[in-house]
Amino acid sequence: MLTRIDHVGIACRDLDRAISFYESTFGLAVVSRERHEDQGVTEAMLRVADAPVGTSYVQLLEPLGPDTPVGRFLARRGEGVHHVGYGVTDITAALEAIGAAGVRLIDSRPRHGSMGASIAFLHPKDVGGVLTELVQAAETG
Amino acid sequence: MLTRIDHVGIACRDLDRAISFYESTFGLAVVSRERHEDQGVTEAMLRVADAPVGTSYVQLLEPLGPDTPVGRFLARRGEGVHHVGYGVTDITAALEAIGAAGVRLIDSRPRHGSMGASIAFLHPKDVGGVLTELVQAAETG
Repeated sequence: MLTRIDHVGIACRDLDRAISFYESTFGLAVVSRERHEDQGVTEAMLRVADAPVGTSYVQLLEPLGPDTPVGRFLARRGEGVHHVGYGVTDITAALEAIGAAGVRLIDSRPRHGSMGASIAFLHPKDVGGVLTELVQAAETG
Repeated sequence: MLTRIDHVGIACRDLDRAISFYESTFGLAVVSRERHEDQGVTEAMLRVADAPVGTSYVQLLEPLGPDTPVGRFLARRGEGVHHVGYGVTDITAALEAIGAAGVRLIDSRPRHGSMGASIAFLHPKDVGGVLTELVQAAETG
């Protein structure tokens, strides 16, 4: 069902500074930068793999304010890993199967994510404390 | 420098139960199960990607006791993401470059990790709160 680790989402207080760090220390490059009002974040995707197959990203997330999911995460835990996103080929089928397995779905229907992807979050309490995201990448053909 | 997200390391209280969950809910399969006395953990690697290129793993980590790094993590934060491991082709060169960039190295020299890999950890305080691991996979040729 899961085809790859699509990205690791990392909460940070200062997106420009975090991007700079990942660029200069690890040689990653930003491939997308977006602001999502509905999620209360401004974020950047930095490509980890060179191969077109199995591409993964580091996603750096800065909250748009303290009263947002990432803002509350930073207040409670500080900077660090916020969630893990896994690739799927059919997000609707995956949500149905995972829901049927007893995992509570934060998003019972997919919504829009970075770079045109369809995404949905699963409840961390049912995934061993890990806020887990499913990602069906945009068609690129 | 970083070639892929090698794995996400997830701390759990009961390895058998966590494996069961990832197998039944997400269809992942265990490819390796090892006990590392020096790291104070028993752990399993579950393969995420099917393609030989860009293979990533979920690593489930159960502490061997409360007075171990993962045991202390569980007591402080509960179950969840413990660290992120990135693939590198030359871990010695990567450590030198990253150390020169001002990041404190927990392991200044590589040590043995899962599945014969050479690994080294970077200090989370210098990587935006993320305990970061470099992984040079074992030669498989």
